[in-house]
Amino acid sequence: MSGQKHGPVYGRVALIGLGLIASSMFWAMKRAGLAGEVTGYARSAETRATARRIGLCDRVCDSAQEAVQDADLVVLCVPVGAMGPVMEDIAPLLKPGATVSDVGSVKRHVIDAVQPHIPEGVHFVPAHPLAGTEHSGPESGFSELFDNRWSLLVPVEGTDPDATARLRALWEGMGANVDEMDADHHDLVLAVTSHTPHLIAYTMVGVADDLRRVTDSEVIKYSAAGFRDFTRIAASDPTMWRDVFLTNKDATLEILGRFTEELFALQRAIRTGDGEHLHDYFTRTRAIRRGIIEAGQDTDAPDFGRGQKK
Amino acid sequence: MSGQKHGPVYGRVALIGLGLIASSMFWAMKRAGLAGEVTGYARSAETRATARRIGLCDRVCDSAQEAVQDADLVVLCVPVGAMGPVMEDIAPLLKPGATVSDVGSVKRHVIDAVQPHIPEGVHFVPAHPLAGTEHSGPESGFSELFDNRWSLLVPVEGTDPDATARLRALWEGMGANVDEMDADHHDLVLAVTSHTPHLIAYTMVGVADDLRRVTDSEVIKYSAAGFRDFTRIAASDPTMWRDVFLTNKDATLEILGRFTEELFALQRAIRTGDGEHLHDYFTRTRAIRRGIIEAGQDTDAPDFGRGQKK
Repeated sequence: MSGQKHGPVYGRVALIGLGLIASSMFWAMKRAGLAGEVTGYARSAETRATARRIGLCDRVCDSAQEAVQDADLVVLCVPVGAMGPVMEDIAPLLKPGATVSDVGSVKRHVIDAVQPHIPEGVHFVPAHPLAGTEHSGPESGFSELFDNRWSLLVPVEGTDPDATARLRALWEGMGANVDEMDADHHDLVLAVTSHTPHLIAYTMVGVADDLRRVTDSEVIKYSAAGFRDFTRIAASDPTMWRDVFLTNKDATLEILGRFTEELFALQRAIRTGDGEHLHDYFTRTRAIRRGIIEAGQDTDAPDFGRGQKK
Repeated sequence: MSGQKHGPVYGRVALIGLGLIASSMFWAMKRAGLAGEVTGYARSAETRATARRIGLCDRVCDSAQEAVQDADLVVLCVPVGAMGPVMEDIAPLLKPGATVSDVGSVKRHVIDAVQPHIPEGVHFVPAHPLAGTEHSGPESGFSELFDNRWSLLVPVEGTDPDATARLRALWEGMGANVDEMDADHHDLVLAVTSHTPHLIAYTMVGVADDLRRVTDSEVIKYSAAGFRDFTRIAASDPTMWRDVFLTNKDATLEILGRFTEELFALQRAIRTGDGEHLHDYFTRTRAIRRGIIEAGQDTDAPDFGRGQKK
């Protein structure tokens, strides 16, 4: 899929919020010629100035209202907690027949916050691309971000199938594989595969930072031994992640509860010297890794984490 | 340092245990011409056959005793729990003036288990290279594993400074940076930067595997969103890690206690909707990541985890 030239899927696309995902969408749409014109808006004047400087979006607008005018597709690329207010703001200016989508990491909350403001005759197709880096801001995007990654569409009841199909074509054109999923199931799956792991990584990095007897420079110097992957995860955008945890509270707390339960069982095995329990557990977790490699979501190169990343 | 040709540092080196670290040491010593002859021994006949087939070691021996004869350096590359018995086994055959070292991830336990068996006139210089991958076994090694990574030397009281200096030259010749550290401090630092992160990663992967409402295939398909880094950590060798937790019990349990405390504080912030607490915490952890990049322990490439690893 990647690198191929498509015809335009939408005449005009408006990106509201110009961070990592929106800027990657812009470059990915340009790469494949998926949109006639892309407008963009960011709340911060500094972000808008940066976007203009680096040619991010065909036209950077000074208001969200201006950006969405005549847009066939409006994509909300703001933190999950800001989706509702932004939607309320732009609702009166949406073109009849337009589609509103988003890229939020939580879907039930976004649907509850956005759906009530969707005008009659406008389609709403929530989405979530499972792709990211630890970087944020308008300069962090790149056209390959979505290549061979999943983008989940979470259509709400009554969504026009044609609107969903068109959004699917856009994501496929940007290199992604597309699946559809129910909102509540999405939030649970993401709590397991993303939200709870992030919280845990943040916590572990915080513990290291707190510990007086191990200096920061030691933590940093010797991070290659496992900790480095945690710091990478824990470097993601704080506002985005705050909103994720506040809005996917129930699923995150449930998975955290299970996590604590299992951790306590392993902790007890360490305390009592139960090597068999530890060995069995560590053997079982290995299989999951093999599944991921077979599913093509990572490489099996023997020097992981050390080679140059292109 | 890497790739440079050195003179031999030792005439004969014996590697006891032929897993990831030992096999990487062999290729790194060969690359720089650091040893006259390298002998090797592994307990499993299958591992010895593989080593012979792929040319790992100049000579693969059928007993540890045979491998250490006339060796100037003997490196114990077995799981931490096996170090004591192996040392007891080879002690009578060690050449006077020889040096014994190891590559275990825990140092106090190894010193307590190995030191009593060191014969008069033989030097003991414990070491720990902070390098690894999720792979194990004789075929997983490669000569670049230690390049620009830290190797910690943990000399015991009364260790001959010349023996320590010579081992340092070997590690530097294999591409590593070398630091010296006290055993107890080493075990605490590693509990923070490596042992506890590994336990946490194992636990999170186990939770995902247990969860009936999220299928394995979903966990695997959607792992790019953070979970993938955990599975990578959690795929490491089960026996090695069992021994690490059993032998670095106190430091691991202490760090786990702190981790749980911090995790509960974040969990409470999620439950009560305290977004400020979450945002402050996540902002603080970002700085550590920057420190690691500045310290040269990782790259800042914007598509981390997605590019080809060489």
